[in-house]
Amino acid sequence: MQKFDNALAESYSVGAVEVARWEQYALGDAMPFQAMWYTVAPGSASQRDCHPEIEMSVVVSGSAAVETGGTITEVEHGSAFLLASEEAHVVHNRSADTPLLVFSAYWMPRPTTAAEAQ
Amino acid sequence: MQKFDNALAESYSVGAVEVARWEQYALGDAMPFQAMWYTVAPGSASQRDCHPEIEMSVVVSGSAAVETGGTITEVEHGSAFLLASEEAHVVHNRSADTPLLVFSAYWMPRPTTAAEAQ
Repeated sequence: MQKFDNALAESYSVGAVEVARWEQYALGDAMPFQAMWYTVAPGSASQRDCHPEIEMSVVVSGSAAVETGGTITEVEHGSAFLLASEEAHVVHNRSADTPLLVFSAYWMPRPTTAAEAQ
Repeated sequence: MQKFDNALAESYSVGAVEVARWEQYALGDAMPFQAMWYTVAPGSASQRDCHPEIEMSVVVSGSAAVETGGTITEVEHGSAFLLASEEAHVVHNRSADTPLLVFSAYWMPRPTTAAEAQ
């Protein structure tokens, strides 16, 4: 069993977001996805992000207001959200006092075969 | 964007553990892993479990006392743990009043090729 301690994780800032990527654990290809924690300070939001990776996120503390396609969806503590490949998103923390902590797993979509594309 | 609401998820009991598997969301192979939430009531523990799938878990509420190989490791809220294939484990909630909520992703280990096995 390996433990990954959020409180001890190395992180860096991207605007108002503190990001701790799991590459620091050197898991190689033990997991079929990449992973990170990120924290959004109260009253702040992430930068607009858009990437080819599919991203599955669990709200670990606080509540996330996830903006996609002009709509904001509130994802409460304990709930989760899945972003499609190339789906632009902004994650807001609309609380005045509670940090938002999210765990995200992300991976490249599997290639579409010629047969599937027809 | 798809939201998965933990409060609305269908679940079933396994001893003192309430399990909500993500198969209910019919995601097919959109994710390279299976997923579930499980809740361990205060003062309770899961049954001993052992399975071929590798399992990565994030503690979403409360604190998990994870027993493997005769050792108990406390995994606090926000932190995570990774169980190897066929690693027997019991997850205890030693709190008197706080439920333990865990998000787990699990997947079969990739086959070892003949070249790697040598």
